[in-house]
Amino acid sequence: MTSDSIVVVNTGSGLTRALANSAEVVESTLDYLLPIPEGAEARLAEAMRYATLGGGKRLRAFLVMQTASLFSVSETCAARVAASIEMLHAYSLVHDDLPAMDDDDLRRGKPSTHKAFDEATAILAGDALQCRAFEVLAEPDTHSDPQARCELVAALGAASGSRGMAGGQMIDMVTEGLTLDGPAVTRLQALKTGRLIQFSCEAGAILGRAQSHQRHLLAAYGRDLGAAFQIADDLLDVEGDSAEIGKTAGKDVAAGKATMVAVLGVEMARAHADALAKQAANHLDGFGEKASLLRDLAAYVVQRRS
Amino acid sequence: MTSDSIVVVNTGSGLTRALANSAEVVESTLDYLLPIPEGAEARLAEAMRYATLGGGKRLRAFLVMQTASLFSVSETCAARVAASIEMLHAYSLVHDDLPAMDDDDLRRGKPSTHKAFDEATAILAGDALQCRAFEVLAEPDTHSDPQARCELVAALGAASGSRGMAGGQMIDMVTEGLTLDGPAVTRLQALKTGRLIQFSCEAGAILGRAQSHQRHLLAAYGRDLGAAFQIADDLLDVEGDSAEIGKTAGKDVAAGKATMVAVLGVEMARAHADALAKQAANHLDGFGEKASLLRDLAAYVVQRRS
Repeated sequence: MTSDSIVVVNTGSGLTRALANSAEVVESTLDYLLPIPEGAEARLAEAMRYATLGGGKRLRAFLVMQTASLFSVSETCAARVAASIEMLHAYSLVHDDLPAMDDDDLRRGKPSTHKAFDEATAILAGDALQCRAFEVLAEPDTHSDPQARCELVAALGAASGSRGMAGGQMIDMVTEGLTLDGPAVTRLQALKTGRLIQFSCEAGAILGRAQSHQRHLLAAYGRDLGAAFQIADDLLDVEGDSAEIGKTAGKDVAAGKATMVAVLGVEMARAHADALAKQAANHLDGFGEKASLLRDLAAYVVQRRS
Repeated sequence: MTSDSIVVVNTGSGLTRALANSAEVVESTLDYLLPIPEGAEARLAEAMRYATLGGGKRLRAFLVMQTASLFSVSETCAARVAASIEMLHAYSLVHDDLPAMDDDDLRRGKPSTHKAFDEATAILAGDALQCRAFEVLAEPDTHSDPQARCELVAALGAASGSRGMAGGQMIDMVTEGLTLDGPAVTRLQALKTGRLIQFSCEAGAILGRAQSHQRHLLAAYGRDLGAAFQIADDLLDVEGDSAEIGKTAGKDVAAGKATMVAVLGVEMARAHADALAKQAANHLDGFGEKASLLRDLAAYVVQRRS
């Protein structure tokens, strides 16, 4: 065993602990932000909680918590923003899984929301989760400076709406069955999944009232990390095991989805993801030791097996 | 013809002109706020525009414009908030009309969005409209004071999410087929349609940085106006003509929907709506002549035939 691999094992377990820790913090924040009311509308809150709690790697939450810690932002404020982004992400998964969209019965190893409840409730729960995500960002507890809260709302809007995630989803639908080239797939993925990951990284800079060059560096980190993450996800779809990844493997290939794996082939795609992960880490050079977990994360997203 | 009815005709035509005028302003603002991008995602913007432009009475927009004018807010700022609320309202209609929800093929006299496009595009267009509504409120052009923008975002979130419109929609679904009593129907309607109308009235006060008692009076006006409006809408469903009201008449009755008309009967429901409209106008006593169109509106919503 070389000293290099010892370093990898050590930082790896540090990252695992930090991921688990931030997942726990965001989980209790989500639990607090999504109370169950009295009355018949309780079913809506239950569906919102079902779709949001207890699931996923909480990658986006981790990015918010870690980038916020670069600027010594309070954990409570960062956790609210992390929870907001996880709610936004959860809403997109609930709607993606609907029969009229990807028609997926399985999500994170359990029935998707429209299977556990019903289609109408799933549509409504997704709608209400998106709404709550924006509302939480605007509330005074999220930041003492309303300017910061407005920037968070506007940036989440830009990242997740028609010029971001929803736009990418539309491109994906319109181009289904067509053969896209590399730049077209890159743009599709940047919109569909990249922008929200990028915003998760910028959120720390917004919360920390960082200088604009710092925000740009974190945005660049997020952009490259997001691209690497997406390719790794597509590789898992090709090579992974349904039980391990918690969703139906091979589904994207069967559906003829445009991915970098389809464009480049497995080996080249893996090399491309590795290069993007390294490039992501390079953007953090100026942040020193404080950013070491973010660097480790870049290595982790292209190595993960689930 | 009595002098009374002359007064009604005069203020009626002033109101008609004012409604048309604010509808025109909000239409051009929506056109500006919903540009069509290059690329395959253009279809999403087209569906968003289809669902939002050229339709409806723009009641909510009018309420924003009129309450804002009480505090001499610039028309540009008020129009952005009005457009935002109309986008939010439009998203709710797009999702309500989906096959899994109310399954309605007709909206404002033309095919509903999932009929004109497809279900997946309609889901996505609704999602992106909601997103854009929040984004617009948070952008600097909406108000020079970020505190006002945050209040708008948080208040729209409270009005339209699980404690507001979406919660009301859930109650409606859960209680379908059950016989609700008056208080239960009142609460359902207050959440489902009332809160957004109430917010439209409060928005002017938020934009105008009004004193809290003024905001409360406008909220009370909006609450009573919204309740009156909903009963009038339910009366139209019973008594109206599909071509005139631009949607399928008699549908709520056929579906056994809980309405005040079902609880009270047609005559009592009409009397109740009239009383609510008068009560709404009374909250405006302290605003003098400037609020006369808002008073006229209260009378109009219970008299309208489409």
